[in-house]
Order: sequence, then structure tokens, then C-alpha cells
Amino acid sequence: MTDSAPEDSLPALVGPVEVVGTGLIGTSVALVCRRLGLEVLLRDTSAEHVRTATGLGAGQAATSGDRPQLVVVAVPPSAIAGAVVDALGRTDAVVTDVGSVKSAPLASIAARVSPRELARYVGSHPMAGSERSGPLAASAALFDGRPWAITPHAGSDPAAVGLVESLVLECGAAPLRLEPEEHDRAVARISHLPHLAAVLVAGRLAAAPAEHLALSGQGVRDVTRVAASDPTLWQQILEANAGAVLDLLAEVRTDLDALMAAVASGAGDDGGLVDILERGNAGTAAIPGKHGGPARPTRSVFVSVPDHPGELARLFGDAGEIGVNIEDVHIDHDPGRPVGLTELVVEQARAEHLLAALESRGWTTHR
Amino acid sequence: MTDSAPEDSLPALVGPVEVVGTGLIGTSVALVCRRLGLEVLLRDTSAEHVRTATGLGAGQAATSGDRPQLVVVAVPPSAIAGAVVDALGRTDAVVTDVGSVKSAPLASIAARVSPRELARYVGSHPMAGSERSGPLAASAALFDGRPWAITPHAGSDPAAVGLVESLVLECGAAPLRLEPEEHDRAVARISHLPHLAAVLVAGRLAAAPAEHLALSGQGVRDVTRVAASDPTLWQQILEANAGAVLDLLAEVRTDLDALMAAVASGAGDDGGLVDILERGNAGTAAIPGKHGGPARPTRSVFVSVPDHPGELARLFGDAGEIGVNIEDVHIDHDPGRPVGLTELVVEQARAEHLLAALESRGWTTHR
Repeated sequence: MTDSAPEDSLPALVGPVEVVGTGLIGTSVALVCRRLGLEVLLRDTSAEHVRTATGLGAGQAATSGDRPQLVVVAVPPSAIAGAVVDALGRTDAVVTDVGSVKSAPLASIAARVSPRELARYVGSHPMAGSERSGPLAASAALFDGRPWAITPHAGSDPAAVGLVESLVLECGAAPLRLEPEEHDRAVARISHLPHLAAVLVAGRLAAAPAEHLALSGQGVRDVTRVAASDPTLWQQILEANAGAVLDLLAEVRTDLDALMAAVASGAGDDGGLVDILERGNAGTAAIPGKHGGPARPTRSVFVSVPDHPGELARLFGDAGEIGVNIEDVHIDHDPGRPVGLTELVVEQARAEHLLAALESRGWTTHR
Repeated sequence: MTDSAPEDSLPALVGPVEVVGTGLIGTSVALVCRRLGLEVLLRDTSAEHVRTATGLGAGQAATSGDRPQLVVVAVPPSAIAGAVVDALGRTDAVVTDVGSVKSAPLASIAARVSPRELARYVGSHPMAGSERSGPLAASAALFDGRPWAITPHAGSDPAAVGLVESLVLECGAAPLRLEPEEHDRAVARISHLPHLAAVLVAGRLAAAPAEHLALSGQGVRDVTRVAASDPTLWQQILEANAGAVLDLLAEVRTDLDALMAAVASGAGDDGGLVDILERGNAGTAAIPGKHGGPARPTRSVFVSVPDHPGELARLFGDAGEIGVNIEDVHIDHDPGRPVGLTELVVEQARAEHLLAALESRGWTTHR
């Protein structure tokens, strides 16, 4: 956030705000703007989506006579450029989009509008909401505390950039300014590559014998979880960011070859296998902790929890009374018995206190 | 479990039980046996580990005059074969080990003992405890409801196999009989491959700019989590299972080439990208659900939770009162603001009820 303008110097978001595409993200932005008391104008190729969003109090259907201050384009990746070009031509408004990829749409837009029109366009990308879709999944709280990339181009009007940042801040998100190409390289690494690795691992499970899959633990579930996402949406995202994704996949292919050679060497450390595994350790440590700060040292506390309503409540109730903040939770899936192994991730310095206090309340912990 | 002998036909575990290697797994097995009132004899190259385990009530230090009924070898992968050979020579006991890989140690053992001695050896592998280490992490509840593979060889004495299964059942685990080679192929797929995919993705994060990593969401954290594990332990596991791991890595390399071609094609579905992504969907669906049954259809309910002690307790307290069982939980990490997006995974049929009831109690949900 250090490279963002101070909030007080930003243009005020006064509306009207036009939202093009009343799916999860568009309707959520609309709900935020309505909460601010702004006039919100809704457009969607699906009249039913507009009716649903209107029914949720997200605004009213847009009309040709509207004079929006800001247009937010929240349509599927393959439709973004066209919708932005249309909005720049229809209105004098600042226009942003919320697509997952920024460079390719910008190039397509720049080729179809005048520099004066292009100055009113500033791309952006909220890191929120990918698992759900549709206006019914929308919420004004969707962006709370999430990173939201703002990706100005060389010709972007600074006032337009400021207005988009005002929207991001009003949404409760954390603005982060990046050049479009840099944004695309960043999401290729922290989103698109992990997604594809999950897809490749999950793809190897599809045909596996049931008695092999019966040995599955939490690890394979965590690694493959995101591979359950919508293939059509991801096909559009990946093709829009093909360049950055292919660069990383090529690096991974090189790493994979080195890994295979190290495993095949069978020569212990000599194969470089430990080095490769240690680089993995370093990578997990490089991911920032909660609230953007460096990852605080945490420790996992393991507790056996009977798998029926109320037991987790009792556990968290006790943890709350004990006064230890839970940083993260994992519930281990346990083929065989209705007992869950629950992992509570807490600040390292508080772990012993939590363990002792939970044990004193009769919980079976695994030190 | 269907291919396991009925419990009542199994030889009784009466002890003494000798545990070789008083780390997490060995000490946990020892605690289970002590809980059963059995005599437990402890061996470890580290006298301090034996003292610690003894202090935890896990048994007493082994002596040369012991006559154990069962020896459980729980040493690091590279030391397993030697410890099993030693135990078969020292005693007349049934000998099992709890290593993550079965074929290579078996071959090494078979080459060094007589067929009569080998008949007393039955390998096994509890799917538990990989994140922690040392006797202080041990617990008699560690194996509750976990799969525990039993891997007899062609010459294993059926009574020896039955005794190992008795141990597994006494540990509260779910026994699953597999041939050693089949076990190794299974864990290569559901454990070793996911681990290596996480390592490769995490390896690409290590050198990334901080402003790129600042965009990290839950997806990359889940995919890379297991890459934080002990490199030395994993080097030994991977080299002991090099054959099965390399076979799968070669398959993944082929899939990766196809994926790169599909992304490069930029021709929409024609590149086969959607097919590859759909195979990922199918793979996540193939992982069995809790309690070994088919995965029940679940739905995620998202709730904004202030990030301080007691708030999660209040949420789970309300969920408990509402009477909906939480299948799984994820707490989204949120750089920027002290508000967590908590994902409650519940049975699909109960999701709407939970959403409405939580909203009526004032929670901000994300439908």
C-alpha cells in the first residue's frame, strides 16, 4: 500500500456508479456503493441477473440517459475488452474492470479507442470471490481486507486512478498499484501456477483405484482443492495470461526435470533432492502472514473432536474463554471413525498455554 | 476394510510389545499399548528419547532378556531395514514397521534373513502424524480413525498378519491390506506426488517480489502448505519409493507438456484446456469423503469474522445451536484488515438453513 496515494488526496466517489455484469463481483461492488448511499445503475446481458441484483437492493436498471461518474466492468474475462470499449464510448465516466488478467484486455482496448478515451480507463483486480458465482453470492463484505490490485497504464489520467482507488478503499479492500504486465506475472505465480499444479495432481487421481484413494489424508485434499473450480472461467483466465503462465510452466518443467533426476540418482543428498525440498520450505516461508505482515511464528495444536454438531462449538468456546486467538483451522478427514482431528494454528508463544488449558477441560490433545 | 479378517478371528495382542524408535509414531503406539495394560519395552539410539518416553508413561527401557510378542519398528526410513533384521534375529516375535514405503525395505530385509525369520515380518503404515516429530508430540489418540495400511508379503505368516491387524484395531485405526508394491504406488499418488507438486510451486515463490506475494490468497497457501515439511525425512521417503514416484512424475511431465500446448494454442476449447481442467474437477471428486464413504455433496458458507479471541467461538457456538454439522473449516488470511473470511463446509442440504440462521443472528454471510 506504500505506493498508493494518501486517501485524503483522492477524488471523492459521489456516483452515479454503473456496474456492467451483475454477477458475484459486480453485485458486491454495487451493494457497497448502495451502502454508501450512491446511485447505482445495473447492466447485464441477463435481464434476470439485473432483476435479482435489483431485488437485493444493489441498484436500478441502467438507461441510455445515465451519466455515471464511474463504470465498473465485471463481466467474464473474454467479454471484458468489448464491455470497456463500449462504456468508454457510451459515457464520459472513468471506467475500470475487475478481471483476473490485465495486459491482454488493455492491449485490445487501446487498439479500439482514442488516447483521450483510453485515459479514462484504469484496470483493477480484487483478490476475492473466485469460488462462488452469481448475484445471490454477492455481499458488501466480500472485499473486506482483501488485496485489490490497481493497474494503471502509461496514459491513465491520475484523477481516474485516484477515483478507482477511492472505490477500492470504500470496498474495504487493500489497494496495491502494479503495472498491468507486472500484475499478470504476479497472479501467474501466486494464483495461476498453483491452480494448474493442483489440476495436474488431481488429474492423476481421477483414474486411481478406490483402495489407493482410501489412504488419502489432508495433504492431498489441500493440494488439489482449487482444482474443483469452474473450467470455463479458468480456460479464459489462462488464455488471457498465456504468456506469463507459459513462462512459469517452462520454469516448473525445468525444475521437474531436475527433481526427476534427483529422485532417480538415489544417491542421497548428492542428487540435490534436499536442496529442492529446502527451496520448497523457503517458498512457503515467503508467503506473507495475515494482515500483510511477516508470517508470525505459529504452532499447530491438535485436538480430537467427536464429529457431530456442537463439539466444534464447544472446542472454540473453550479456546475463546482461554483467550487464545485461532490463526487458522484444519479439520482432518478421517475415513473409518467419527472422530475428527482438528488442527488449531495459534501464535507459537500461546500454544503451550492453549494445550494445557484444553487438557484441563478434558480435551484429548496431541502434543 | 472389507478385505481384512473379522476382528474376532484375530490373535490377541497380549504383549510384551517392544517399540524400536521412540519418536512420535513409536511413542504413540507405546502409549496405546500401555493404555491396554500391556508391558511395553522401549529402544532408541537416543537414551534421552527413551527417558522422555518412559517419563510419559510409554513403557520401560528394553533389556537383552526381553521376550516380546510383537516388535514395532518406528525409526527413520533409511534405518528401517536394519532395525527389522536386528529384531528378527534378536527375538522370536512378530515384527512390523511403520515406514512410509514398503517394497524397498522388504527387499533389503528378505536378502538378509531366512525365510523362516521373514515369515514373522509384516510391514505396515499408519497415515498419521507426519507434521510433528519427537516423543513429546506423541498421543494414544494419534491414530483415531486414520487409515493404517498393512502390507503382508507372499511369505508372511497369516497369524503374524493377524497380530499386526490386532495392533492396528487396538490403536483405533482403520486397517487396509495392500501388497507392498501396491501400497507404494498408492502413496506415490496420494501423498508423494502432491507433496512434490507443492514443493515445485513453493520453489517458484521463494524468489518472487514481495509486492507479487502480497496478492497471495488461500489457494496458494493450501497448495503449498505441505512443502514446509522436513526435507531430510522426505528425501529418505522419496528415494525409498523412487520407482513409483518417477513413474508418476513422468506421467505428470507428459500432462504438463499437454497443458503447455493447450495454453499456448490460445484457441479456446480446441487446445483441450477445458478437458484438462475438467479432469482436475473429476480428480478432486474422486477423493473419498469423511468416514470412507463417498464424498457427500457439500456447500461452502462464507462468514466475515472479526479476528480476535472469542469471535470464532461465537460463530461455532451459533452453528452448534443451529444444529448444522461443520464438515470442514477454512479461515482466509487477509492482508490489510483484521477481518477474517471464514469458510464453513457443510452438507449441501443444510447450507441454506445455516445461512439464514446465521444472518438472523447478525453474522455477515456471503451467499
